[in-house]
Amino acid sequence: MDYANLSPVKFRHLVRQGQFTGPTSGYCPGYTQANLIIVPQADAFDFLLLAQRNPRPCPVLEVADVGSRQLHQFAQDVDLANDFPRYRIYRDGQLVQEVTSLDDIWRNDFVAFLIGCSFSFEAELMAAGIEIRHITEGVNVPMYDTNIELLGAGKLQGQMVVSMRPIPGSQIAKAVEVTAAMPRVHGAPIQIGDPQAIGIQDLNHPDYGDPVTIMPGEYPVFWPCGVTPQNVVRQSKLPLVITHAPGHMLITDVINQDLK
Amino acid sequence: MDYANLSPVKFRHLVRQGQFTGPTSGYCPGYTQANLIIVPQADAFDFLLLAQRNPRPCPVLEVADVGSRQLHQFAQDVDLANDFPRYRIYRDGQLVQEVTSLDDIWRNDFVAFLIGCSFSFEAELMAAGIEIRHITEGVNVPMYDTNIELLGAGKLQGQMVVSMRPIPGSQIAKAVEVTAAMPRVHGAPIQIGDPQAIGIQDLNHPDYGDPVTIMPGEYPVFWPCGVTPQNVVRQSKLPLVITHAPGHMLITDVINQDLK
Repeated sequence: MDYANLSPVKFRHLVRQGQFTGPTSGYCPGYTQANLIIVPQADAFDFLLLAQRNPRPCPVLEVADVGSRQLHQFAQDVDLANDFPRYRIYRDGQLVQEVTSLDDIWRNDFVAFLIGCSFSFEAELMAAGIEIRHITEGVNVPMYDTNIELLGAGKLQGQMVVSMRPIPGSQIAKAVEVTAAMPRVHGAPIQIGDPQAIGIQDLNHPDYGDPVTIMPGEYPVFWPCGVTPQNVVRQSKLPLVITHAPGHMLITDVINQDLK
Repeated sequence: MDYANLSPVKFRHLVRQGQFTGPTSGYCPGYTQANLIIVPQADAFDFLLLAQRNPRPCPVLEVADVGSRQLHQFAQDVDLANDFPRYRIYRDGQLVQEVTSLDDIWRNDFVAFLIGCSFSFEAELMAAGIEIRHITEGVNVPMYDTNIELLGAGKLQGQMVVSMRPIPGSQIAKAVEVTAAMPRVHGAPIQIGDPQAIGIQDLNHPDYGDPVTIMPGEYPVFWPCGVTPQNVVRQSKLPLVITHAPGHMLITDVINQDLK
């Protein structure tokens, strides 16, 4: 069966029924994929405030109603407890379990946040003729911890995580233009070149993901990364946080172009 | 003393000391003026979520920390309990008191929200050569209830309020361009012409503010209005809501141009 070209709702049905449990990269091309963070209501204000104060690394696409597994804006016929192929459960900051359904642990005080993802702007960059090196090399995007302090919110505080894509000097302006037009999926780069300026010592050893080749004439270009809020909520040792497993996203009904 | 050209911080000091208690229109020209909504922490998540879901009528400029009268982004040396010239206190949806200081009722669970205001974009419209009729006529901007449903959030639900400015057909495109570039102060119009389409029956009888003249060749242009969130929190009969008194705003340290 050709899963890649299913409609988003049919793809979500497969995931919901447990027939697809893998990474979602490349599926339903053109449709927005979203990150997930779930916290109990007691911590939901702090998290929403963290996102309000740091929209570049934490672009909220939609917040579900308290206790609800449904969405109003980004998808119809959705079950947030089953439509991500894989979830991670953290207690007191520690990963305790990876599951393919949240049926057994769902609570009426859970608040689910959908967060924008750079998959959306990578499609636009490629459409603009810009090569995405980690896609060419078939690896995960390199991501780095930085010394860029977030504006804290209540119990939540931390530094920004960035993703890096090498871009030739002749195409950097175009890459900025394309991504600046998409603030709901991180927007423009936060730093171009000079990794040390944001506390990155060695590009060959990313903190998450894989290293990629930087060719002569290319500069490392750094974007705010959706791993940021996940790290912050884990580091703050909230009693319970649930996220999607890396790469195992929700495919929404919204096309990337509509995020402009 | 020439109050109008004081720096924002000096103006706030005057207000804080009770030496200025009037409307702020025309003071500290070029600087962003902000609306206020304060709710206790128990209702703060619902309000922030209402704003996240309805950013056009509820553009949040900044949220203060729980219990704090300070800001981090829009002003230094600020006291949110005293730096608005006048406040209104609502209990169970009823206006019970108008005061010039919140010292006597401030609580450690108060959360203050600064909301963007169309004062900011009016300056830019005038700079673009567009006449603002209610300023020419020396009255308050006309505002109307509409049938445009907001996306609800928890206990909070209601319809959008809009402000109206008549614009000649030749300048409407420019007015859209200018305001679309300022999403933090309501952004582009929500409706151009045809008031009935959004539930407005009689332009001569605004629900708030004053009627203005519409000349031949002009069309009524409607923008989302910051009265919207105030109405919603009052109509929902929250136990306690504090707002600024209409026109009695906070003058921040941020210039309007920086809201683009």
